[in-house]
Formats: sequence, structure tokens, C-alpha cells
Amino acid sequence: MEINGVEYTCPMPEVDFDTITLGHGSGGLLTNKLLEQTIFRLFSNEHIDQQHDGAVFSFHGKMAFSTDSFVVSPIFFPGGNIGDLAMNGTMNDLAMCGAIPKYVSLGLIIEEGLKVESLWKLLESIKRISNLYGVQVVTGDTKVVERGKGDKIFINTSGIGEVKSKARIGINNIKPGDHILLSGNIATHGMAIMSVREGLEFETSLQSDTQYVGEVSAMLIDEFGDRIRFLRDPTRGGLATTLNEVASKLERSVELDEALIPVLPQSASACELLGLDPVYVANEGIFIVVVDPEISLEAIKLMQQYSISKQAAYIGKITTNYPKKVIMNSRIGGRRVLSMLIGEQLPRIC
Amino acid sequence: MEINGVEYTCPMPEVDFDTITLGHGSGGLLTNKLLEQTIFRLFSNEHIDQQHDGAVFSFHGKMAFSTDSFVVSPIFFPGGNIGDLAMNGTMNDLAMCGAIPKYVSLGLIIEEGLKVESLWKLLESIKRISNLYGVQVVTGDTKVVERGKGDKIFINTSGIGEVKSKARIGINNIKPGDHILLSGNIATHGMAIMSVREGLEFETSLQSDTQYVGEVSAMLIDEFGDRIRFLRDPTRGGLATTLNEVASKLERSVELDEALIPVLPQSASACELLGLDPVYVANEGIFIVVVDPEISLEAIKLMQQYSISKQAAYIGKITTNYPKKVIMNSRIGGRRVLSMLIGEQLPRIC
Repeated sequence: MEINGVEYTCPMPEVDFDTITLGHGSGGLLTNKLLEQTIFRLFSNEHIDQQHDGAVFSFHGKMAFSTDSFVVSPIFFPGGNIGDLAMNGTMNDLAMCGAIPKYVSLGLIIEEGLKVESLWKLLESIKRISNLYGVQVVTGDTKVVERGKGDKIFINTSGIGEVKSKARIGINNIKPGDHILLSGNIATHGMAIMSVREGLEFETSLQSDTQYVGEVSAMLIDEFGDRIRFLRDPTRGGLATTLNEVASKLERSVELDEALIPVLPQSASACELLGLDPVYVANEGIFIVVVDPEISLEAIKLMQQYSISKQAAYIGKITTNYPKKVIMNSRIGGRRVLSMLIGEQLPRIC
Repeated sequence: MEINGVEYTCPMPEVDFDTITLGHGSGGLLTNKLLEQTIFRLFSNEHIDQQHDGAVFSFHGKMAFSTDSFVVSPIFFPGGNIGDLAMNGTMNDLAMCGAIPKYVSLGLIIEEGLKVESLWKLLESIKRISNLYGVQVVTGDTKVVERGKGDKIFINTSGIGEVKSKARIGINNIKPGDHILLSGNIATHGMAIMSVREGLEFETSLQSDTQYVGEVSAMLIDEFGDRIRFLRDPTRGGLATTLNEVASKLERSVELDEALIPVLPQSASACELLGLDPVYVANEGIFIVVVDPEISLEAIKLMQQYSISKQAAYIGKITTNYPKKVIMNSRIGGRRVLSMLIGEQLPRIC
């Protein structure tokens, strides 16, 4: 079955209830049934099969640990769903620490009335990504809240990754002159969500870019080691906000060339229609990489070999000209200060 | 300031907003302000100060990893709040794996309109527990949802702990004849919450038992090693549900003596009033320990030396008489099968 351009191929097994009720959050018999018939069935592995309060495993080395709660609305959107997003999001956060994701926890807060079939589809998507990248869902928790006290489902994923031995990712490693590369088109996720929100419909079909970017970031670290200075995925608040955080913490400036920032024509025109600047629109499947300028071209070439980053481009550099500021050199030769996103552009984008 | 028997002593610093708005979840300037003025200020440590997508640290050995989302209502209740509960809950889950909690992540889902002062009090409680037990909050995430799409605040905590080298906790280590000990009174948390829910007021004042139990479980492991077979905290679903999970997975029976199960008189009478069986009522500050019968008495004595477990008692044993069943020997000499909790007794208890 296809929904919003996403294929669901794993048929739901027979379950003896079709809607989530408060009882499914009781911790008692119904919770047990729900877990046995969905989560434990789908994610069976040596850790989750223990059904204990937590998972136990051995770990030796440098670890990355990250958490993210997802409240995106609608829960199914063009190109993905809240399940995809929760897996990719936390895995990307780990990747941005220079790590390979290994274990993920799954915390569900369900509003009573959610169809079990919807839940199953979200879990199926999570499982698909888990299989694809060898990331195990090892522990979890399920709560149910009354109708009107939640909104269908919120998902928290927390993750543990193994930091690559060659990784030297850190904002303090960034030097003036370093190049800023971007792996792909901005504003795609935000505009895809906006396209299905009430009252807004564009003529073109935009799909969210939700995806795992860690294979490419890992490849960059393998190839270039400490010349990859910094990684970050510009999600909520968009490219401009993320780079403002960098500039501010680093006490350097970020200078960007507007003409070099990749954006799909349909996102650009949708932004124009709505009076939005794409640099503030949320992304889910791209990342910023700050590199030693000497390897900049090579790094771009490497990134362009992968389908998820074939639009990879140089977009600007680190300078000392305007401490703590992000400067945009516009297409028509002007320059302006890009502040952080002020206010709220689109609530519940992720 | 005291609320519901809990002291709040850490004054809120000057903040320039008094209510959480959707903008605080934008990922932009307001999110930044909220974090700078509350979370980063309160939890400052080498990891969270990085303000990266995740925390990075070294780990060598056996690790426990656990997650829990908390949706308790009301968020301030007699004897605690959702912040206390979220810290103690995940730390207890790690302790039940035989681990010492080390690092915690904090995922907040806030409904717009929450007072910053309430948020500060919750964070203060989290920080107090963090200090008390040396557990660092190292990474986090904050989302805001529209009014009527959440309920004040939901908190996810995920945690990482170091499994004690002498720990051999596992359901498969349980043998017929093993004793079941309980660290304290049952039904206290559930009845404390019920006492403040709309329309229900008891004459006596009950306080939640939310607390960290891991110091005592760690001491038991240090002292008795593999003779401590299994640990579990009976939260949602109560003692009866937790022991049913044990009996069912173990394919043995659990036989309990009703007269030996500790319960506060005021909880017992409140349960009677409401027609509830205290064995199904949620707990937050007690744990079940299954031990080799040879060390049972010694273990109880050890537990009784600690204030959190001075009511520790033998409550029953593992037998082969009624596979997969929990049997209650009643005060008046009868015996009955205790099933898991069926339906929902009290939604959003944790």
C-alpha cells in the first residue's frame, strides 16, 4: 500500500483491537497485549525480548548519546511519517557527533483513539530503517493519554552510537578560512509539511527529505579525518538558525553566498508564494559540514557520489570579519545579516 | 517555597517571558532563549555546555540503557512532581538492571501556556536528584505543542548506567524456592495521585513514594552477588501485574502471602473506600527482589537499615505448583489467582 509516496509492505498481523484505548497504557493486560502483538513482534531481538526495564550490552570506546521527541503534524506526510522522522532524526544527531548509530530506544505517547493500523505503519517504517542501517530498537515505553490531551502520537527516540576513531568533530576545531559545505537542497521538509497543512496546497508535489545522512558523514570522516571539523543537521529554524548558533558559539562569522545554496525550484516558489525565506525553513535530510579548505573540493566530489547528497555544494566560509554574525551575500550583490529565526514559522514541523 | 510537601529552594533567575509559547519550540531565537535561561543555566556541565546534537563520552564495560516517558496528571502532586518522577523512574529502571545510573537525557513536550515558573520548579527537582546521585543530564530536546494538543508537560528521560560487575540479574536466574522480597509499602504513589484527582479527597494525607531505590539495590548486589537473582520495580499495573509478567515469562508460579505485603493503613483504607485492590495500584519508590532463600533474612536486614526500605519484607516465593500463575494466600486462609490488571484503573499515573 502506498500513502503519500511511501510504500507500506508489511501486513499487519491479526490483532484483537483496532483502536488504542486508555487501557493500553495501564501497564496491565491490555498494555501487554498491545506490546506483544505489535512492538515485541516487529522488533524482536536479544535485548527487547528480555522485556526488562532496560537493555544491557557491552560497550567499549567513545560513545555518542542523543535524544529527540517528535510531535510533527500530520503524522503521515508527503515522503514520510513521524516514525521515519523519529528514527532518521536521532540517527542523524548521532552521525553529526561523528558516530555510527547502534541502539535506539522508543518512547510512545499515544492519544486514545489512534488506529492500531496507523501505529503499525509507523512501527513498520521504524523497523525498515532499523534493518537498513543495523540499528537495533532495544528498549521502549508506551503511554496513552486521554482524547484532547495529546495529538495522535508523539515519539521520543534516544540513541547510542559509537564515535568513529578518526572523528574530531567539535565547534572549537573550526578555523577562520574553513569552508562550509551543504549536502543537499534546503527547505524541502518544511515545505512538504506546509503543503499538506490545512488551507495550503501547492501545484507541485513536494516530498519531505527525511533520510539518514550518516553513511555520507561517516565516509567523509574515514577519508579526511580531522579535516572534517564540524557536522550539524539544520532542522528546526533552518540553515540560518543553525549557522547562527555556530557563529555565536565560535565568536567568528559565517559568510554565505545565496546563489550557491541549493534549493528545489518548487520549494523556492512555494516559499516565495508564502513570503518565507528558505534559509529559515526546516530540513530533515541534509547536513552542514565545515572542512579544511584544502580538502573542500575533494569532499564535495565524494559527497556527490551518494544519492542522498548529489546536490552537495560549497555555500560559504568562516571568517573573522563580523564576529558572531551570519552574513548573506545576495544574488544581486548586496549583503545582509541573517539573524536566527524569530517567532514561530510553522509549529510542529518535526 | 513548599508545594504539596516538596521544598523548592532554588529561586528562578530573571527571565524575560513568563509563559511558554509556540515560538519557544521553533528551534529559533526563542528556543535559544528558553534553553539559555533555564536548562543550560541549571544543568551546566562539560557535555550539555557543548550544545551539540548529542553528548560524547567514553564508556568501557557493561551498559544498561532505558527510556521512560512521563505523562502524570497533575504535574505537581503530593510528595513530588513530574520532574522528580521522570528522574527517579528512569534511574530506578537502570538500577533494576543492576546498574548505577550515570547519564540522563531530557526530552520535554510542553503545551503552550505552561508557566515558566512551573517549568523551573520541575527542572529544579531534576537538578536536585541529579546532584544527589551524581547523574548528569547530558543532552536534551524541547518541543512545544498547541493548547489542547498536549497537557502542560510530558517528560521523556532516557538513561545510561554502568552495570555492576557482580550483578547477575536476569529472569532466567530465578529458581524454584527463591524468595520474593519487597522493599516497602505498596499502593502509595497511586493513592497519592488519586487523592488529588478531581472529586476524590481522603481525610488522611498520602504522599507519593517517588524516590531513587538504586542505592539499596546496589548494596544488595555488592553484598550478595549472584544470589540476587532478579530486580523489578512494580510501577503501572502494580505488584500483581509485575509478578504476573515474571510468572508468565519464567513459566513458574509466584505464591504470595497477603498478610505479609506491607501497605500503609491510609492507603489500605483509601483502597477499600474505592473498591480497589492495592496489589494493582501503581508504585514509584519500591522494588521487588528475588533472592536465594539462604540469604533472604540477611537481605531483609540489610534493606531495613536504609530509610527508603525500612519496611522491607518477605512476601512470597517461587514455586512450580501453578505454572505461569500468581497465587495469593489470603489473610483468612483462602487462595486465589491474581491476574494482571485488566482495563485501566487510573490513567496517567506516571
